Amino acid sequence: MSLLTLARDLKRRRARERQGLFVAEGIRAVEELLRSPLRVRGALVSPQLSSDARGSALASSFDQHAIPIQTLTEAEFASAAETDTPQGVLAIAEIPDAPLAALPARDVFRIVVLDAIQDPGNVGVIVRSAAALGALATVALPGTVDLWNAKVVRSSMGAHFHHPAFSCTWPELTAFLDERDTTLWGADGAGDPLDTVLADGPESIPDRLALAVGNEGRGLSPDTRRRADRMVALPIAPAVESLNVAVATGIILYELRR
Amino acid sequence: MSLLTLARDLKRRRARERQGLFVAEGIRAVEELLRSPLRVRGALVSPQLSSDARGSALASSFDQHAIPIQTLTEAEFASAAETDTPQGVLAIAEIPDAPLAALPARDVFRIVVLDAIQDPGNVGVIVRSAAALGALATVALPGTVDLWNAKVVRSSMGAHFHHPAFSCTWPELTAFLDERDTTLWGADGAGDPLDTVLADGPESIPDRLALAVGNEGRGLSPDTRRRADRMVALPIAPAVESLNVAVATGIILYELRR
Repeated sequence: MSLLTLARDLKRRRARERQGLFVAEGIRAVEELLRSPLRVRGALVSPQLSSDARGSALASSFDQHAIPIQTLTEAEFASAAETDTPQGVLAIAEIPDAPLAALPARDVFRIVVLDAIQDPGNVGVIVRSAAALGALATVALPGTVDLWNAKVVRSSMGAHFHHPAFSCTWPELTAFLDERDTTLWGADGAGDPLDTVLADGPESIPDRLALAVGNEGRGLSPDTRRRADRMVALPIAPAVESLNVAVATGIILYELRR
Repeated sequence: MSLLTLARDLKRRRARERQGLFVAEGIRAVEELLRSPLRVRGALVSPQLSSDARGSALASSFDQHAIPIQTLTEAEFASAAETDTPQGVLAIAEIPDAPLAALPARDVFRIVVLDAIQDPGNVGVIVRSAAALGALATVALPGTVDLWNAKVVRSSMGAHFHHPAFSCTWPELTAFLDERDTTLWGADGAGDPLDTVLADGPESIPDRLALAVGNEGRGLSPDTRRRADRMVALPIAPAVESLNVAVATGIILYELRR
């Protein structure tokens, strides 16, 4: 299969899962990918890439990394690209295998649990925030958009090339929480106000904490509500229904950082 | 001009500015618009709206509000809609006239200043956060995407139907800051860590504060850097270049709330 055919195929979640591969598109994302430990299988480039100094530098770095390249016309490139204004470069890389059980043992950590988050932009921004704010991992429960969807990869700005982000089932998550003596909290508008939680002093904040954040419309799933040890809320003005889930996740992670 | 022609015309920023009108699309946004103080000029509906109980209720509420309706075929509706999967309803409403000088006098307030933010999703999420976290207003400096762009309106979830959000020039902002004795801080990765700023105690946090947040790629403009009294930063992991601007704005607003 040519790299072009492969890249087109990888637009579908099923193909990404079967092949264990994903696509990173654009100069910035591909630069980030080359700096990461992920294995790059190949790259597609169009003449447009060399119209830019940064693009030309990137094109020559594929040779240094011994990465196979296929050079395409603009029209061919556009058929594989997912952005409206492609920058003439995309790379195909291996999805890292990172099960929950393989996460390093720590006495103090935070994990973000995505409970059926639908919007790829939200998921990417949450992965980026989790990485920036020092979380150990981001895990996606069933019903969440694929973490290796092109839009998620773009909006994470390459954060999940370094930060462990992967999907898991409820039984896997439950086993992890039990084995690592980890507390699960959920973010929910009707929960305990975060101010009150923090006012109880540092000993009220678990050392090992998983924070679940829920679907944009429906909030947390019944499974998460049943399993969570506590619900926490951010106080907001009554005229506004809720904060955007990525903003709420960022604020809570920041407030609960250790 | 028919409502259909008007709605199509209002896809362009220049038309919105000339007419002083904008378009809210989708059931949730239009419901929110009808609950707001904004004046609605008319609505476009397609048969699809009545396929849903909530949509039918919305259709009948136009009569109660004496709002003119034009009923369209799905194809005509699609020509005015900006979403890929239209819900069969959009409304045309007046952009509220809300200059900085007209903001109510307060002893303590926060204002968010958008300094050339380009992504409509980021702008909408920031307006929603500013409203939720009790800011007095959100103002957009030149170079920021139009606040009444359909994507901004969608991602704000109707927050700026209630919360004052408008564009302003540098001279207008400067005059406001002087007249209201308001301090301008900028969010910048190289600024003073927010922890340190807060550790100095509540008297180090201005009562009247404008927080400027900058462009996704370039950060704050030279004008803002010159004028700002202080730069503040959120400490993040070294592997990540920055937080998403909407997340950073949410965290800083939350931390500096009064």
